[in-house]
Amino acid sequence: MRLRMEEFIREQQKEIVRELENIDGKKFRVDTWTRDSGGGGTSCVLQDGNVFEKAGVNISVVYGTLPKPAIEKMRADHANIDTNVDSLEFFATGLSMVLHPINPMAPTVHLNYRYFETEKADGSPTAWWFGGGTDLTPSYLFDEDAIHFHKTIKDACDKHDKSYYPRFKKWCDNYFSNKHRGETRGIGGIFFDDLDESEKDQENIFEFAQSCLKAFLPSYLPIILKRKDMPYSEKEREWQQIRRGRYVEFNLVHDRGTAFGLNTPSARVESILMSLPLTARWVYMHEPEKGSREQRLVDVLREPREWV
Amino acid sequence: MRLRMEEFIREQQKEIVRELENIDGKKFRVDTWTRDSGGGGTSCVLQDGNVFEKAGVNISVVYGTLPKPAIEKMRADHANIDTNVDSLEFFATGLSMVLHPINPMAPTVHLNYRYFETEKADGSPTAWWFGGGTDLTPSYLFDEDAIHFHKTIKDACDKHDKSYYPRFKKWCDNYFSNKHRGETRGIGGIFFDDLDESEKDQENIFEFAQSCLKAFLPSYLPIILKRKDMPYSEKEREWQQIRRGRYVEFNLVHDRGTAFGLNTPSARVESILMSLPLTARWVYMHEPEKGSREQRLVDVLREPREWV
Repeated sequence: MRLRMEEFIREQQKEIVRELENIDGKKFRVDTWTRDSGGGGTSCVLQDGNVFEKAGVNISVVYGTLPKPAIEKMRADHANIDTNVDSLEFFATGLSMVLHPINPMAPTVHLNYRYFETEKADGSPTAWWFGGGTDLTPSYLFDEDAIHFHKTIKDACDKHDKSYYPRFKKWCDNYFSNKHRGETRGIGGIFFDDLDESEKDQENIFEFAQSCLKAFLPSYLPIILKRKDMPYSEKEREWQQIRRGRYVEFNLVHDRGTAFGLNTPSARVESILMSLPLTARWVYMHEPEKGSREQRLVDVLREPREWV
Repeated sequence: MRLRMEEFIREQQKEIVRELENIDGKKFRVDTWTRDSGGGGTSCVLQDGNVFEKAGVNISVVYGTLPKPAIEKMRADHANIDTNVDSLEFFATGLSMVLHPINPMAPTVHLNYRYFETEKADGSPTAWWFGGGTDLTPSYLFDEDAIHFHKTIKDACDKHDKSYYPRFKKWCDNYFSNKHRGETRGIGGIFFDDLDESEKDQENIFEFAQSCLKAFLPSYLPIILKRKDMPYSEKEREWQQIRRGRYVEFNLVHDRGTAFGLNTPSARVESILMSLPLTARWVYMHEPEKGSREQRLVDVLREPREWV
């Protein structure tokens, strides 16, 4: 499974990078790196592009010994992991992507699918699980984009299990939440973690993860193509910058994946923090005008909606 | 002590705000707020000024019941606090300040002095302690500024105890550290926490905290006056924006004060996050040129220096 997942995400990385280069017209910078304590990865980053302010499509395959602070961030429910140990042998591979477009009418998108193995708490050789998801973060909300994004993901989920989309949609709204602000990061998508043998057999879950990842291009490309050249004002660009500040808040304060990365010894910080936007803004006491498009977005972030 | 500390920081807030308005030429916005679960504060914020991009000088007096996640962030060593309880009665008052100047040659400065009381773990009525400090974060390093800043603080410390400055200078370098980057946030200053009866009597420590806070204006004003009108290039402004990104990383990933605030129920998020700069930038794989002034700063942040 380690090798199959790695091969799959490598292919997907190539295909996604190729499609995004077609749209942007600029090439990704490709950095292949190795990790002192085991493994490595390939980071593809496009910065200051024509369409994307910053776009990262990274894969990594890392293994070795994990210290306690990272163990605690590794998994949502910690089932099958003894978090009371000082260290743990692990293997992790996954693809992570964040795209921040320049145009404030075009939404930021995030995606991550990963496969983990560790030694089990009961001493038996390995526990394994899949995790991941994808979510959309607009500065200006177009209902049709939200519907298209959610519908494409729902179709991918439904092929495997009709319970997946509703469960993982809710999990996404709960997870990508700036609790200190009382608002979600964006308009959601799906998120799941700890999908293991208690859910379905490994082959089954791998197929599900593959469907999800393959659904990315059809879920996002029509949206970016429709929005990338829309006209916008300086004021709309400023609102986007404020929303980017909220994105940074979520990633640095709440995101377990970022915390896991920053707590993993000899982690590649530049690859972990490629998720941060090129620019962001924090305006004291900024309040959108009543009845404005900005206010409408905030209303939806305060009370997540059903889109399909 | 609660009332005396509150009165002292109110006076200091007024004096500092007055001096900063003289320098900037623009007025602070003053927001007085009350906290649903007990207490309140006064936030003074100047944004888009002539000298300061963003400047906040806040005081707060809050009390009530603290939940577990906040208890764990409240104190460095947790001595005298039973962190195994689900909640705890507390009182906290303090002044917090962060100034982000526009000119990249002028350093950001942070200051916070606070007084805490809680019920003791052994059931006796109260534990009390003082905490705080101040530190300087330049984008471009002028040795004379670092020396002046540290010397002014050292003089304030030395009046009370010759051991304070060396101990608290080291504590500051250790605390304001972006561990994931292997660099400190800035060129330091002092930081201390948990100063209580095991150190000196309450009167004594209160006098020390007063001296520290009174040393702020003489420590920073000569620096900002010297730097605020220096010429700078677009490239230097960009480097400042990258350093501001690191400032955000520290505050959101590592700062215990911010985490304490965000985990305190009915906290005023806008007052806590006024510490974030108006604008910040994350450039993938940015590397300063060898031998440049930018590189020299990074070298010092990697290996903190003695300035006096």
